[in-house]
Amino acid sequence: MTPVPSGELAEDRVTVRLGPRSYDIVLGRGMTAQFGLFVRELLPQSQTALLVADEHTRKLAAPLTVPLGEAGFRTALAVIPAGEQSKSLEQLARLYDALYELKADRRTPVIAVGGGVVGDLAGFAAATYNRGLPLIMVPTTLLAMVDSSVGGKTAINHPRGKNLIGAFHQPKGVWIDTDHLATLPVREYRSGLAEVVKYGVIRDAELFEILECHAPALRNGHASILPSIIARCCRIKAEVVEQDEYEETGLRAILNYGHTFGHAFEIVGAADHWLHGEAVAAGMMCAVRLAQRLGYLEDDSLPSRQEQLLRAFDLPIRPLPHWDVEALLAAMQRDKKATAGRLRFVLPRCLGEVGLVDHVPLAEVRQILCDR
Amino acid sequence: MTPVPSGELAEDRVTVRLGPRSYDIVLGRGMTAQFGLFVRELLPQSQTALLVADEHTRKLAAPLTVPLGEAGFRTALAVIPAGEQSKSLEQLARLYDALYELKADRRTPVIAVGGGVVGDLAGFAAATYNRGLPLIMVPTTLLAMVDSSVGGKTAINHPRGKNLIGAFHQPKGVWIDTDHLATLPVREYRSGLAEVVKYGVIRDAELFEILECHAPALRNGHASILPSIIARCCRIKAEVVEQDEYEETGLRAILNYGHTFGHAFEIVGAADHWLHGEAVAAGMMCAVRLAQRLGYLEDDSLPSRQEQLLRAFDLPIRPLPHWDVEALLAAMQRDKKATAGRLRFVLPRCLGEVGLVDHVPLAEVRQILCDR
Ligand SMILES: NC(=O)c1ccc[n+]([C@@H]2O[C@H](COP(=O)([O-])OP(=O)(O)OC[C@H]3O[C@@H](n4cnc5c(N)ncnc54)[C@H](O)[C@@H]3O)[C@@H](O)[C@H]2O)c1
Ligand SMILES: NC(=O)c1ccc[n+]([C@@H]2O[C@H](COP(=O)([O-])OP(=O)(O)OC[C@H]3O[C@@H](n4cnc5c(N)ncnc54)[C@H](O)[C@@H]3O)[C@@H](O)[C@H]2O)c1
Ligand SMILES: [Zn+2]
Ligand SMILES: [Zn+2]
Repeated sequence: MTPVPSGELAEDRVTVRLGPRSYDIVLGRGMTAQFGLFVRELLPQSQTALLVADEHTRKLAAPLTVPLGEAGFRTALAVIPAGEQSKSLEQLARLYDALYELKADRRTPVIAVGGGVVGDLAGFAAATYNRGLPLIMVPTTLLAMVDSSVGGKTAINHPRGKNLIGAFHQPKGVWIDTDHLATLPVREYRSGLAEVVKYGVIRDAELFEILECHAPALRNGHASILPSIIARCCRIKAEVVEQDEYEETGLRAILNYGHTFGHAFEIVGAADHWLHGEAVAAGMMCAVRLAQRLGYLEDDSLPSRQEQLLRAFDLPIRPLPHWDVEALLAAMQRDKKATAGRLRFVLPRCLGEVGLVDHVPLAEVRQILCDR
Repeated sequence: MTPVPSGELAEDRVTVRLGPRSYDIVLGRGMTAQFGLFVRELLPQSQTALLVADEHTRKLAAPLTVPLGEAGFRTALAVIPAGEQSKSLEQLARLYDALYELKADRRTPVIAVGGGVVGDLAGFAAATYNRGLPLIMVPTTLLAMVDSSVGGKTAINHPRGKNLIGAFHQPKGVWIDTDHLATLPVREYRSGLAEVVKYGVIRDAELFEILECHAPALRNGHASILPSIIARCCRIKAEVVEQDEYEETGLRAILNYGHTFGHAFEIVGAADHWLHGEAVAAGMMCAVRLAQRLGYLEDDSLPSRQEQLLRAFDLPIRPLPHWDVEALLAAMQRDKKATAGRLRFVLPRCLGEVGLVDHVPLAEVRQILCDR
């Protein structure tokens, strides 16, 4: 995608308030030269730092070694293969080896430079090496900027279940440089926009309206408003996480809007290689229709507004016709959010407000999946 | 070892106060029939439970499935090979598989029945599966009862470093049935006594005196006083952990009395197959002599009292003469507790009181190792 033309450094800051685990998300453009000071301020005593990137983000990570070196860090860069299959015990062991080689001590930060895959894997390594190293997130996909780098969830996959092995481990800081988006494939970028739309629907009607206004520019990544939109998403995620850090009260579940359907699409439709945000987009359309069908939705304009916005971002608005309905239903019932076979959904009541709805009859869900 | 003759159930309870992570250590004898209720009370909603044991403790774990079944748990038992080498990514992956097979959900407890190896491995699996499952400790070695099952440290080994991969994850409850000691090899039992002596020296002069009084009976495991001694050790460990849960203030380090020397003995003397407590015993003797040499020790009777007590438990009181002094010094400098080559020791000031001493000159330590 083409980024907005480089301008002056426009810095923004969002604080995630979690008592002793509080941290700042710093947002701006062209901030590489400041990175060393950022990390040094967080970790006055550290001598070493491990950067982690994947094959596509190594060229974003390498320049960060310069300011880190100037700030007195001895650094190493571990590069993992790009892609979801790197969230494995095998790649985890490689990061442990890299930390050992670096002679990491308890102050050595792990700095994740990449999308959610790098963040989740490097974050889990940080959570577990020496019973916990400081973690710095440098998200380079839109999804990672607005979602995975904030909130402290880290994970790898079990051969039988995604994100089945993980830990809560909050970062010490998040560094969002929107210039990093310049090299991101446009389809990945738009997939991230689905999560942005999600925040509007679940918590922020005004954000949704801003997205509607700026849809054409946002679609192409040419929106000077993008950094402030990312900051707004981070603030929403931060608020939810502040109130439900360990996913105990149920509040954090609202972030899964569109995801119960979406996960089923990712599994059953694996051969069609949808990106996560694409599956979530179609999933949000199913969820809003389900809310309407169940009489839960109070604002009848929402389904069409949501559809139009997703279309404007070139995102799919329904599952593919050849996906088997019963297979989708079965996948949803195996979903972690389904307790003992009962189906649970995050459903919108109106723009900016969702609720958790338990015991949704299977027949209603089937109907939604049949109407496409 | 021979246990004390079976009497009535003598229950004791020690609470570890860690706010929302508080838990009880229940102590007694012949309590198997009550185990189901104990776990059910902690976890009213759980449907499944994974027991973890090693080859030697599986016969202690199997009977626990009966009361668990009566309390409504569907259980599975995972058995790992006995020994330190089971604290590996490989055995960890096997426990993840077992949890998956059991269809574990976030309420499924992992119940560790064994020594520190089972506790550390199963504890780390519990810390990381599904971002955290409830953990119940059923320690079956004396070391695990007084030390490893309390305090929330879980870990596996990296090929290059012991306990290098781990997490803090407090158990929901600890179940100490001293009848489980009946099958423990006497050498393992006496090795555990070294840690008991340690608690006396670092925090509890009265405990030390009780040990002196009852040494002959304790030596053979024939001491009706044993459960109350274990409870006392748990209370000390609990107090230290309560004040320094995440090993941040330095207080928790006092639990490492004798361990800087001891770890070096375990590494350099690996071929001599000392048990951990044996190395710690000789390590405590080196530490007390070092304290004396540095003029730190205020009570000159301590070295001989400590030596006599350790001798009474058949524990070694000095490193073996053929261990190379320079190799021992090198191992100590690589120890995690040595920051940047400076040697740090936990040294006694008097019976029941120790302090952290930094910057100990290498020459003094060498002298202690040469005088054997
Ligand atoms: N921890 C959380 O809270 C959380 C939340 C949501 C998603 N996730 C996880 O995040 C992962 C998905 O994250 P993702 O969508 O960022 O995928 P990703 O990390 O795989 O990145 C997508 C692709 O873009 C490439 N890439 C990344 N940044 C780039 C850049 N700036 N320029 C060029 N190429 C770049 C990557 O190499 C990869 O090929 C999933 O594993 C998901 O489980 C975690
Ligand atoms: N997490 C912590 O805070 C902590 C503290 C201290 C030690 N540790 C760890 O604990 C481990 C050592 O623990 P350990 O000394 O209990 O060793 P262990 O678990 O290996 O047990 C010693 C031996 O006794 C056997 N055994 C255990 N209970 C038995 C019983 N009742 N009857 C017959 N045989 C029995 C075991 O199978 C093993 O062969 C080390 O890995 C160490 O790192 C952890
Ligand atoms: Zn998502
Ligand atoms: Zn020990």
